[in-house]
Formats: sequence, structure tokens, C-alpha cells
Amino acid sequence: MLLPAVCIVWQTAMIILFGVFIRYNEEADPHWVEHRHTNNISSDIENDFYYRYPSFQDVHVMIFVGFGFLMTFLKRYSFGAVGFNFLIAAFGLQWALLMQGWFHSLDYTDGKIKIGVESMINADFCVAGCLIAYGAVLGKVSAVQLLVMTLFGVTLFAVEEYIILNVVHARDAGGSMVIHTFGAYYGLSISWMLYRPNLDQSDRLHGSVYHSDVFAMIGTLFLWMFWPSLNSAITDHGDGQHRAAINTYLALAATVLTTVAISSLFQKHGKLDMVHIQNSTLAGGVAVGTAAEFMLMPYGALIVGFCCGIISTLGYVYLTPFMEKYLKIQDMCGIHNLHAMPGVIGGIVGAITAASATESVYGVEGLINTFDFEKDFKDMVPSRQGGHQAAGLCVALCFGLSLQPPLNVTTEKAQ
Amino acid sequence: MLLPAVCIVWQTAMIILFGVFIRYNEEADPHWVEHRHTNNISSDIENDFYYRYPSFQDVHVMIFVGFGFLMTFLKRYSFGAVGFNFLIAAFGLQWALLMQGWFHSLDYTDGKIKIGVESMINADFCVAGCLIAYGAVLGKVSAVQLLVMTLFGVTLFAVEEYIILNVVHARDAGGSMVIHTFGAYYGLSISWMLYRPNLDQSDRLHGSVYHSDVFAMIGTLFLWMFWPSLNSAITDHGDGQHRAAINTYLALAATVLTTVAISSLFQKHGKLDMVHIQNSTLAGGVAVGTAAEFMLMPYGALIVGFCCGIISTLGYVYLTPFMEKYLKIQDMCGIHNLHAMPGVIGGIVGAITAASATESVYGVEGLINTFDFEKDFKDMVPSRQGGHQAAGLCVALCFGLSLQPPLNVTTEKAQ
Amino acid sequence: MLLPAVCIVWQTAMIILFGVFIRYNEEADPHWVEHRHTNNISSDIENDFYYRYPSFQDVHVMIFVGFGFLMTFLKRYSFGAVGFNFLIAAFGLQWALLMQGWFHSLDYTDGKIKIGVESMINADFCVAGCLIAYGAVLGKVSAVQLLVMTLFGVTLFAVEEYIILNVVHARDAGGSMVIHTFGAYYGLSISWMLYRPNLDQSDRLHGSVYHSDVFAMIGTLFLWMFWPSLNSAITDHGDGQHRAAINTYLALAATVLTTVAISSLFQKHGKLDMVHIQNSTLAGGVAVGTAAEFMLMPYGALIVGFCCGIISTLGYVYLTPFMEKYLKIQDMCGIHNLHAMPGVIGGIVGAITAASATESVYGVEGLINTFDFEKDFKDMVPSRQGGHQAAGLCVALCFGLSLQPPLNVTTEKAQ
Repeated sequence: MLLPAVCIVWQTAMIILFGVFIRYNEEADPHWVEHRHTNNISSDIENDFYYRYPSFQDVHVMIFVGFGFLMTFLKRYSFGAVGFNFLIAAFGLQWALLMQGWFHSLDYTDGKIKIGVESMINADFCVAGCLIAYGAVLGKVSAVQLLVMTLFGVTLFAVEEYIILNVVHARDAGGSMVIHTFGAYYGLSISWMLYRPNLDQSDRLHGSVYHSDVFAMIGTLFLWMFWPSLNSAITDHGDGQHRAAINTYLALAATVLTTVAISSLFQKHGKLDMVHIQNSTLAGGVAVGTAAEFMLMPYGALIVGFCCGIISTLGYVYLTPFMEKYLKIQDMCGIHNLHAMPGVIGGIVGAITAASATESVYGVEGLINTFDFEKDFKDMVPSRQGGHQAAGLCVALCFGLSLQPPLNVTTEKAQ
Repeated sequence: MLLPAVCIVWQTAMIILFGVFIRYNEEADPHWVEHRHTNNISSDIENDFYYRYPSFQDVHVMIFVGFGFLMTFLKRYSFGAVGFNFLIAAFGLQWALLMQGWFHSLDYTDGKIKIGVESMINADFCVAGCLIAYGAVLGKVSAVQLLVMTLFGVTLFAVEEYIILNVVHARDAGGSMVIHTFGAYYGLSISWMLYRPNLDQSDRLHGSVYHSDVFAMIGTLFLWMFWPSLNSAITDHGDGQHRAAINTYLALAATVLTTVAISSLFQKHGKLDMVHIQNSTLAGGVAVGTAAEFMLMPYGALIVGFCCGIISTLGYVYLTPFMEKYLKIQDMCGIHNLHAMPGVIGGIVGAITAASATESVYGVEGLINTFDFEKDFKDMVPSRQGGHQAAGLCVALCFGLSLQPPLNVTTEKAQ
Repeated sequence: MLLPAVCIVWQTAMIILFGVFIRYNEEADPHWVEHRHTNNISSDIENDFYYRYPSFQDVHVMIFVGFGFLMTFLKRYSFGAVGFNFLIAAFGLQWALLMQGWFHSLDYTDGKIKIGVESMINADFCVAGCLIAYGAVLGKVSAVQLLVMTLFGVTLFAVEEYIILNVVHARDAGGSMVIHTFGAYYGLSISWMLYRPNLDQSDRLHGSVYHSDVFAMIGTLFLWMFWPSLNSAITDHGDGQHRAAINTYLALAATVLTTVAISSLFQKHGKLDMVHIQNSTLAGGVAVGTAAEFMLMPYGALIVGFCCGIISTLGYVYLTPFMEKYLKIQDMCGIHNLHAMPGVIGGIVGAITAASATESVYGVEGLINTFDFEKDFKDMVPSRQGGHQAAGLCVALCFGLSLQPPLNVTTEKAQ
């Protein structure tokens, strides 16, 4: 009886809060026509909708199909993975629109939050952070606990995102820090809190069966294919977005080869461990997230992907068992290997790439556009920006590790 | 031998009819370059193709993957569902291009139908109506009967659509009335005509098995994710399309929570009935269809989704068994809960939203653009538009309930 | 130990070659802003990225999900099909960026290859050619052999593509000749080289099982749905792209009906052979590839689809067993029926359509844009263009049939 009550009450609360706070932004408002005339916008297609909507749909697919099916590789939780993923995401994105709206799109003239397609993309990003966390505790928590995790997670995410992007002024196009580092450590710290000694490792990472494997590959492939859209969805128009897509495409390609290499190295007669193929092949997309819109250069993207494929696969082989045995952290889907480590690497790569930016490479205008050296940051220089990026990574780590919802009191409710 | 003959003969007829009637519209014609110069169109991207094509692809995915896989939850018909869905859709969209073309894109200067990407979207919409109907009789009819159903259905659809949109001048961006209400009642009246007492309920709605469930979730998720594209695909450029996407996204999110709530309320120890999750979570997208492009407001979209999740799930619990037992209507996929009721609700919501439109909310130009108060409808006012919307709903109901193809004579051919 | 070594060494080589040769093109470069000003480009959306990116994502889905899952219909190789497909594609597209870049996007001012989103689409096309070839030898070769096949295949593809498009000046929007004809015959000649008498036919084409069938339908549907994007992805902006999408959409629809007709004709009590539905329904997309951007006319597209559905299905019934028995060519996935024959038909249709082009149909500017009668081809006329198209087809056949990697020496390595 708890689940129905929570769903109904929370959804009712959402309706009230949306009624009070949420309105359409000017591009989704019928006054758009006058708005265009007054602002000399030549055509409807200049509406941000036409730049962003295709990317939004790609990201949406990653959140619901990608994350949902990827987690089905744990045969015991196959269906639960898809179903709970659906419930969490549907609740999370409503809460995210409010939370992120208060920080990013609050219109002070009337005290309303103005939402558009870009808000929907950001809400999906925010939900992604929570779904990553869910990967650590899959099968250990009840639906209600997941909803509580999501409520806390989205709130923390919105605050952390605001601090990293607006206060620290770090750039994070693909969310290596904001989404992956935060989400993974948030989930791992909850998993540590909910440690259950009787959970059998063999039921989990090595518990995949043939059909679950093919279902999981659906998730893997949809994440892999649309990752360029994820990393380029909210970058600046034009060259930044173009670059972000290319870098992600290349990094992911390199990751596949090194993942296959390391995986077959550790299996008898060169067979592949499906868990590696399903997860580690995505590590490159995580690690290239922050620097995707910078001048990482194609070979830089390949190097990042190359390293992450190796590190992530080795993580599954050595680190996950070690963490469970000695640190009492049960990482059901191995998110530490797919999100945490690559996320941290991504933050570092971003800091280095930003610090080494020069006017000769970016051009004067390009440097200002790419790093958003405007308004309060007119005096910013690349070297300092590198420091800000590093600071952003620390903020993500602190938020992920320091705060958890009080779930342990309700553990016995876990199915 | 009947199926091959019908396929070959009908496809041959299509080729002849296309040869006589169908041509490219001016945006798909090589004279486009001159057309641009003479009409001062600044760039190729002003071609409707670039506004519409991504939405077309999303809708296309909903028709073929969404509908196809959603129906696989009936384990006995799994493959048949995907395969027949494929056949019907492939035939239906050719017939739809002709039927809708005669009403909507006939060029009176040369008596040809001019097609473009928007025609393809409309053809997919038309096919969707027939696939909904197919959901009511799944497993009871042969492939040939399905083709006959489609031939009749598409024809009725085109007439009904023309009357609702052009004669009655109702607006129906997402097709709550035109597609869902019509399609569902068309299918249900055929199902009533083909009543088979020996069909065992337990083989059907409760007949889902594990793998069928995961396959069906593929269909559910692809329908759920791309529904914002469906409802915004043929709306006006700019703000209307933007708004339609936001409203649909919100309504669907709310539906998921209430569906989970009601479903777990009626199951032992709070488990979920997969049939509810696979179907009722989509009801919000149906019900927000007509009003999606209006100023429904974000909280309005959430309220619509909230109610439909509850109504649709209760429909599966109480109404479907009742209809079968007392009304002799066998609803194999529960389309009355997913399409019929939400479709009617959508029509009513649309009528209310239109009737309550004001110039202060829409602005003068916005009101004219949104409700298309032009040409013969210069004197139209929102209150009257509300009446026209209600009239449109009645037309959809009449067409759905009154006319069926004479399938009962061929029932014994059903596999 | 061979596979890991090859993956690591080749990926390292890629990094070095990318470092030396690959840079971003001007649209992905931060100097884009200045570039826009100097070239009077009005808005960021004029960036080719916004024309091409959605098509790129659709093509990307076809390569990874479409090809990957389509091949799962062979139950013995289900997983291997998806996994190896993933590995080959990830390696192939890096090598393709280099190979195609040297021919198409080499900037002679600085000797660098400038890549953008269009390069990524072309790389995916190139990979598609190799994946088609892979379909002929599925289950007969090891991962390392597949990588060698890909290395050779991509290299041949780049040379062949350059000769056909730039030397012979044939047009091939959808790659009927460049991708399908070449890829299929390349694969078949390798399969002939690796003939294994002990392979049992019954394990293969007729070896599909229920779940494999539904998985394979995922591949079929994603290929079928996104084929209009494939054929229109790199056509000229505006009308050409619009036309390519419409023609492909129509050809594919017609193919489904004739495939179902012929398939049910050869089965007992009108049942369908799933292998036909999964493969032959796509033949129309292949055959309309070259002529898609020409004035094929809607009925022309239907006729092409109509014929290919019949030819391709008959190929599975008669030709594939014949080829194995008498020509010692084992065609595991029947690529001769899905790619080779339709590809050749596509080349012929393209030649005829080009030869019969007239100024009255295309307009003066239209004729020049569609067939690219510019620069060195100012004196070109449609009749001659038809001859060049035919020449292009011959080049594709020669490349496909004449050159194979020396795999037979390593056959015993096949798993």
C-alpha cells in the first residue's frame, strides 16, 4: 500500500507545484510571432526547438531504452530493471524540471520557471544521474526506496550542477563530472550504506544468460549510438556542437577495440565476457564528456577512448570484487567501472584541455564562445579555466560521497 | 492462395493509381531552386523537409516498432503481431497517400496529388488508426481479413479526417479524435461483429510470459518516448510545435506514476501487472493529443495524464472483462482502455481548452495561428471553436461505430 | 592471444595516423564564427551539421542495431553476430575516415584530412559495405579474420568509391553500386574462397527459432524504417534529399507486399517463411538507392520495389541452394538475394533513369544540380550520364569480384 500512496501523493504535489511555478518559455508561447518580429528573428526555424529537438529525442531514447535495457543483463532483475527505470525516470524528470528550473530558468519578472525543449534535455540529464546511481543498488531496494533515492538525487544534482556550472564556472557539455561522477558516487555510497553480506556475487555480474545478453545489447547499442547526441545536446550552436559529436563518435569507437582486447585477454580461449562488452564499450563516451566541445582533436578523443576501454574492463576484473570484499561496497552493475572512473578521467581531461587552450587554436571569438568568457568572466584566461574545471570535479565528488538519503532505516522493505 | 493473390493484385493496382495520380510536391521537385528564387525563400533549410523529416522518422518508428512490439505481449500471437503489423502498415500507407491526397493535396491545375514529407507523416497517422483497430481483433482474423479491414479503415479515416478538420474545422494535432477515438471504435465494432465465445480470456490479457513482456516493453518504450514527436509532427511551425512536445512529455510522465499506483493497488503484495505498465502508461499521450498545441499549460498536461493513468488502468481491471461478458465485445489488447476512452477524454479536453482561449493568453496573432482563424473562418471565436471541437468528436465516434467491412462472412478463414 | 594483440596494435596505429592526418573541418572549428562572417552565412543552422546530423544518427542506428540484430536470425550465431558486428564497425569507421578522407576531404594547403558530420556518414556507409560482406561468411571466420576482411574491404571500398563517383562521375546517393553491389560480391568471393563442405544448410537459413526471429525483426524493422534516411543522407540539400526519402519510403512499402505474396506461395497452408520477411522486405531500399534522388517518380519507385520483393524471395527459394550445391558458394545470410541482385538492379535503374532525364522534367538548374553537371562536366548530357552510371556499376562488380584478402591460409583459426 505504500507504493500507490507515494505515487499518487507525489504526483498530486507535482501538479500543484507546476501550477504555481511552471510556464512555457517565450519560444513555446503563442506570442512567439510578435517576439520574432521585435527581435528580427528571420524564420521559425531559428526557434531553439529546431536546433535541439532531435538531440532531445536521442537523449530520451538513451534514458529509457538505453539505461532500461542495459540493466537487463542481470537476469534476476531483467524485468524489474526496465520497469523501475521507467517509474524513476517519469517521476525524476518532473522533479528535475522544478529543481533545475529554480536555479537556471527562473524569470524574476513574474517569479515563474519558463521551460522549453532545452529544459527537457536538462531534466533527462538529471534523471540519468539518478539512473546511474540505481545501477549500484539494483535488486537491493524497493520501488519506494528508489523513489526516495530519486527525490534526494535530483535535488542534490540540481544544487551540484548550479555550483559547478554557474558558481565555479566549469564547462561540462557531456556531464562527465555533473552527471557521471556525481551519479556513480551517489549510488555507491548508498550501496555501501545498504551492504548485504548474503548477496551472492555469482548471481550478479556473472549471472547473465543468453537472452538477457541480447536484450542488454539493445541497451548498450542505443547508448553507444546516441552518445554523440548526449554530449552535444546542450553545447553552443555551430562548431561546438559539431565538434562534440565528432569527438564522442571517435572516443567510443576506440573504446570498443580496447575493451574487446582486454576482455578476451582474461577469458579462456579468447572468448569475450559479455558483461565487459555491454558496459566497458561505453566508457569512452563518459570520459570524453567534458572535453567534447573543446579542441580535444580527433587523436585526443581516440586516446581517451583507448585508455578508458582498458581501465574500465580491468575494473570489472579486479576492482569490483575487491570493493565488495574489502570495502563492503556491492556494485551490482559495475557503475564504478562505467561511470565513476571514466567520469573522473573526463573531468581531468577537461581541465587539461581547457588549461592548454590558446588563441591561435581557438581564435579570439572562438575562445570566448567555447569557454563562455563573458559577463562576470571577461577577465578569465584558459589557465585559470583549467583550475575552475578541476574545482568542478571536486564539487561533483563531494556531493556524490557526502550526502545520502536515510534509506537504511527502511531496508527491510526491500523486496 | 488467397493471400498471395490479394497482395499482388492490390500492389499492382497501387502502381497504376500512383502512376495516374501521384506526383512530387514542389519542395521535392527539381524546380525547387527556381521556386525558391521566385518566392524569396532564403535557404534550402526553409524546405518543409527540414522541419518535418526528423518528426517523420520518429512517427515511423512508433508505427512499426512501437505498435508491432507492443502487441507481442500476447504470447500466442507474438510473431504474428510483428509480421502482420508490418504487412498492414506497408499496404495501408500506400492507400492512405491516395485517399488523403484526394482530400488534402489534390492540385486542381493538373488533377494530380502532390506528395511530400508531410504526406508521409499523415499516411503514417492514418495507418496508426488501422493498427489500433487491429489490436481489438488480434488472433481472431486472417491476414486477408486484416488487409480488407485496412482498405476499409483507411478509406473511412480519410473521409472522417477531412470532415473533422476541413468541414467541421476542428483542430486535432495529435489525433485524439481523428486517430484514436475512430480507430478504437472501428476495431471494437469489428470485434463485436466477429464475437467468438470459445476464445479464452486467460490466453489473452493475462497470457503474457517473461520474454514476451520484455519484447512488449520495447514497443511501449518506443511509443512512450516518441509520442511528443507524434503530437507535434504536423502542428504549426514554431511555438505550437514546441508547446505540443512539452505538453505530451509532461502528460506521459504523470501517467506512468498513476498507472503504477493503481496497478500495484490491485495486485497481491504490491506487484505490478505488466499488461497495465505496457499499455496504460501511454494513455496520457492519447488524451493530450488534441489540446497539445493549445495553451493547456504544463500543470494542465499533468492533470490530464494523472486522470488517464487511473481511468485506463481501472479499465483493464473492470471494464474489459465486463465488455466481454455482457456486451460480447472481445478486446484482445484492451484498446478501449488505451485508445477509446483516452481519445474521447482528449476530444473533450480539447473542446474545453479551445472554448476557454482568450486573446490575453494567446495574443491576437497567436490566436489566429493556433486555431487557424483564417480564410472562411475569419469570424470564428474561441467559444464557437469549442463547439466545433465537440462536433468533431461526435463525427469520429459516428464513423468508428457505424461502418464496418463485411468480415463476418469470411470468419471461417481466420487462422 | 592474437585478437587482443591485433586490437591494441591497430588502435594504436589509428591514434598515430589520426594525429598526423586528421583535423576538424571548418564547420567544426572554433573559427566558424569568423568563417560565417567572411562568407555571409546568416545563421548557425546553415552549418551542414543541422542538415546532416539527424540523418547521421539514423544511419548509425542502421549500421549497429539494424545489421547487428538482423543477423541474429541464425540462432547458432545470434550473439556473435551482434558482438562481432560491433567490433568490426568500430574499427572500420576509423579506418574509413582515413581512407575516404585521403580521397575526398584532403586539404592540400596543409596536407590534413578535414572531417565533419558528413565524413562520419560516409564512414558509416563504408562500414556497411563490410558488414554486408560479413553476412556471407557469418560463423565461418574468426574475429581476427573479420578484422582483416574489414581492413581490406574498407581500403577497396574507398578506392572503388573514388573511381565511381569522381573518375567515372556516376551518381550513387544510396550506394546501390558503391555499397551493396561491391559489398555483397566482396563477401561472396571470400565465402567461395573459404568453402567448407561440412557446413550443414539446415543449421543456417532454416535454423531460425522463435526468439531469434523476434530479435531479427528488430534489425529488419530498424533497417526498413531508417532506409529513407540512408538513401537521402548525402544527397544535395533541398529537393534531392526530399525526393530520395519519398522514393525509398514507397519502394520499401511495395517490397513488403510482394515478399509476403511470394513467401506464402512457397509455404504449406500459406504460412510465411520468416527468413524471407526478415530479409527480402528490404530489397526495395537497396534497388532504389542510385535512382532515389532522380525523378524516378512515385510509381517508378513502387515498380522497383514490386520487382525486387519477388526476385529477392525467389532467390532465397531457388538461387541460394543452387549456388551452394553447384558453385560452392555458401551464402550464410543470403546477401546475394538482399544486396547483390537488388544492388545490380539499382545500378541499372539508375542508368536508365539518368539517361532518360530531360530539361522539361528537371529544369535547367535542376538538371545541373541533380547530376552535378559542373566543373569538368559542363558538357555532360543525360544520355552520356546514363553510360557513366553503367560504367560505375561495372567498376563496383570488378572490385567486388576480383580482390580478396588472403584469409584461406588462416582458415583453421576459424572458431
